Amino acid sequence: MRILGIDPGLQVTGFGVVDVDGSRLHYVASGTIRTAAADRGNLPARLKILFDGIGELQARWQADEAALEIVFVNVNPQSTLLLGQARGACLTALVARELPVAEYTAVQVKRAVAGHGRAAKAQVQEMVRRLLQLPGVPGPDAADALGIAITHAHAGASLARIGSQVELTQRTTGRYRASRTR
Amino acid sequence: MRILGIDPGLQVTGFGVVDVDGSRLHYVASGTIRTAAADRGNLPARLKILFDGIGELQARWQADEAALEIVFVNVNPQSTLLLGQARGACLTALVARELPVAEYTAVQVKRAVAGHGRAAKAQVQEMVRRLLQLPGVPGPDAADALGIAITHAHAGASLARIGSQVELTQRTTGRYRASRTR
Repeated sequence: MRILGIDPGLQVTGFGVVDVDGSRLHYVASGTIRTAAADRGNLPARLKILFDGIGELQARWQADEAALEIVFVNVNPQSTLLLGQARGACLTALVARELPVAEYTAVQVKRAVAGHGRAAKAQVQEMVRRLLQLPGVPGPDAADALGIAITHAHAGASLARIGSQVELTQRTTGRYRASRTR
Repeated sequence: MRILGIDPGLQVTGFGVVDVDGSRLHYVASGTIRTAAADRGNLPARLKILFDGIGELQARWQADEAALEIVFVNVNPQSTLLLGQARGACLTALVARELPVAEYTAVQVKRAVAGHGRAAKAQVQEMVRRLLQLPGVPGPDAADALGIAITHAHAGASLARIGSQVELTQRTTGRYRASRTR
């Protein structure tokens, strides 16, 4: 399964593509989409760069699922609104291409990648590098996006385990108990 | 020229389609896109309803330009973030279809429709009804979207006037002075 991780931002959106093969992770690609080409005040043009950029990524890498960081409200309400719009554009670009999208908080990403929810940013980036056996630490936005993809890979593995447990329960008891098992 | 006005919201997004023929306005259509069909907590699904809904509107009504209300930050930062994402999805849906998008504040809409920036909501709705010669007042979200379309029609007329002034200046002086005229 191929996962596209996205770390949304109005100026810089990070992306990371990771393949999952059982419990093994393989790095495919990572980088950023930058909206600097558009006039700063031209929000529609900047959102179009995000939408088209994610479209190109998906056309090129053909991910099976996507994962996005849940952003938190900023101190400045105006920034919150701008970030919300950028995130809305990224999410829309993914669902417009029928990609299933999972969402994770920063704490979930830190826990999945570095083992605990209060890991420092540099620690998370170093763990991303190790888990994907990269020759160097990727840029911060790309590293965050790869971290989100890794988090989804781990969550997917857990869901798959739950799935087989459900099947097992079903075979044992003869009735479907998915809702209880979850 | 046909204008699609959008009043974005995560739960209810209003739309209004208006034709402009010189200084005359003609009502074409209005209504709402509601995301209630999706699970409340499933933001990607709700944004997809907005994206697809606006796509259907555009496929049906073939607007030449779109206009969107500039939303303001809410008291609750979490609501601001949600509204931002809904607005981002609407904007993205418009630019993804290569529609030029103009943005107006609520004050600009009130001024354009009711004549002054502090008009009450009911007053604006009544003026929308009169300007478009509707038999009754449309629902609040649809009325707001029609008001945005009307605002853009007026702004377009002003821009056209500026445009002809520019042309006149150009013919008179023999050089292009668009930037000064604006």
